[in-house]
Amino acid sequence: MNIAVVGCGAVGRAVCELAGSYGHRVTAIADSTSAAVDENGLDVTTVLDRKAERGTVGSGDREHALASEYDVLVEATPTTLGDAEPGFSHAERALARDAHVVLANKGPVAERYGDLRAAERDSAGTVLFEATVGGAIPILSTIADLGSEDVTAVRGVLNGTANFVLSRMSAEGLDYEHVLAEAQDLGVAETDPTFDVEGTDAALKCVILANVLGDGDVTLDDAQVEGITRLTPSALDLASEDGRTVRLVGEVTDGEDPTVRVGPRLVPEHGTLAVTGTQNIVQLETRHAGQLNLSGRGAGGRATASAVLADIGRLP
Amino acid sequence: MNIAVVGCGAVGRAVCELAGSYGHRVTAIADSTSAAVDENGLDVTTVLDRKAERGTVGSGDREHALASEYDVLVEATPTTLGDAEPGFSHAERALARDAHVVLANKGPVAERYGDLRAAERDSAGTVLFEATVGGAIPILSTIADLGSEDVTAVRGVLNGTANFVLSRMSAEGLDYEHVLAEAQDLGVAETDPTFDVEGTDAALKCVILANVLGDGDVTLDDAQVEGITRLTPSALDLASEDGRTVRLVGEVTDGEDPTVRVGPRLVPEHGTLAVTGTQNIVQLETRHAGQLNLSGRGAGGRATASAVLADIGRLP
Repeated sequence: MNIAVVGCGAVGRAVCELAGSYGHRVTAIADSTSAAVDENGLDVTTVLDRKAERGTVGSGDREHALASEYDVLVEATPTTLGDAEPGFSHAERALARDAHVVLANKGPVAERYGDLRAAERDSAGTVLFEATVGGAIPILSTIADLGSEDVTAVRGVLNGTANFVLSRMSAEGLDYEHVLAEAQDLGVAETDPTFDVEGTDAALKCVILANVLGDGDVTLDDAQVEGITRLTPSALDLASEDGRTVRLVGEVTDGEDPTVRVGPRLVPEHGTLAVTGTQNIVQLETRHAGQLNLSGRGAGGRATASAVLADIGRLP
Repeated sequence: MNIAVVGCGAVGRAVCELAGSYGHRVTAIADSTSAAVDENGLDVTTVLDRKAERGTVGSGDREHALASEYDVLVEATPTTLGDAEPGFSHAERALARDAHVVLANKGPVAERYGDLRAAERDSAGTVLFEATVGGAIPILSTIADLGSEDVTAVRGVLNGTANFVLSRMSAEGLDYEHVLAEAQDLGVAETDPTFDVEGTDAALKCVILANVLGDGDVTLDDAQVEGITRLTPSALDLASEDGRTVRLVGEVTDGEDPTVRVGPRLVPEHGTLAVTGTQNIVQLETRHAGQLNLSGRGAGGRATASAVLADIGRLP
């Protein structure tokens, strides 16, 4: 496949680096201000070295990349809420010319799922987005293989930063501000961690799952979301005395009107949901296959890129 | 898809029962002595009721089912070792007429993988076999999506009966014979449990994984296998004092010459591998996606049938 990668953060760069080993060719790379295009295949190392040294991937602009010839557009620009732009338009434009779209950007599938599926219906292209939920963990492909009708509920720990903070608070008896500062030093938490610790990121992933399981008209506005910022070490101690701990759990229940809730929940201390560090886990409740538990790295450039490349491999 | 189901045990029956809800049509059902065939689609309930009441599925014989028109042959006859017959010939014959084959029978993929892949190469049909490893757990599809080159090792608990016995011995301090008898009473263990407790079943699953990861010439003879029959409560106590427990763990390491080992192993008491009851778990070590943990029901008619139906959905 010839791949155009739009967005040149950790995931976009890792997709470019790994694509060759999966038998694909990167023909365009765009960041927010520049682009490199070669319809015979870019020398990825040269482009990414230039990005590291000079801050731009090439002399063209993003429009140049979007207008180039490719089979698959990998949309890896930052997630935006509301209109999910510019990611949505990038995807829509690729579909309009019958190309495939693989998303690492959660915006279009969390906030404009119905619009995106409508654009896909009018296209010979297919949209896949495994990388938007749980990084490397094969959650959406498992739901697709089982059939979304077979899945009755999904629950999981879907934000590594929040989980790192909670599991450190719990293990060390430290308070939220202290552990957050430590996580920021380690690069596990962003300078502005709001998106992670307030539950927004986990909620977006749950909204995507709700859209996959249901009719596809759920957005972040429909989710009940509570973060971890008000949790105290004493609350965690209390849980521990009862053999439990606290995790930021997202839940999606199936139905014509799926409900999405994210918030701190008591879970058994050694139970399946009590993953530690930046791990993510998802539990699928199914009609025929019982409960399936899938866990692994929920973030990280290479892990998330491997989900993008798995999607490319699944394209028709 | 029009499906012919050969083998009418728990898995074959559940495939027949669920096929309609996945949009497929069962056009032939065969057990060891009889068959029902209707190229317009069988009334599955009538056929299975007859099986329950009279011990036969219809007035035809298995040959009648094998010679009928179908798109996919579901091979769900009991696993046999060595030449893997008659399962292997059923699969070979379906491929020879360019039909697809979905296996629930481990024999052909554990003992004659190379022969089966050779038959597939000469056919327009595809062979899939998710149900042969870990029941409902999406192990082989995850490996296929990641690319088998990305997976460097697999380790897991792949036999529910052995795990039930070990986790009960561990939790209750009871001896092997006692817990085995209990498992037999509950229907978790067979009257002759050799296949499960000696590690053969787990080893076959690991051999299949080794074939998928490597060159495909591994058989049960290449596996180092030790069962759980000699484990004592005192060995489990000793492990427990050290915060560990014992599980029957299968391991496959990658390489041109993959190694397969199955045996009792010390694992952390609350660690990921210490699943309880009849649960199965698989850990995939990958180059790019880190470690992925997949757990769920490793056996059972409906759970295993859901893997067969997921495979049918993945057929090209």
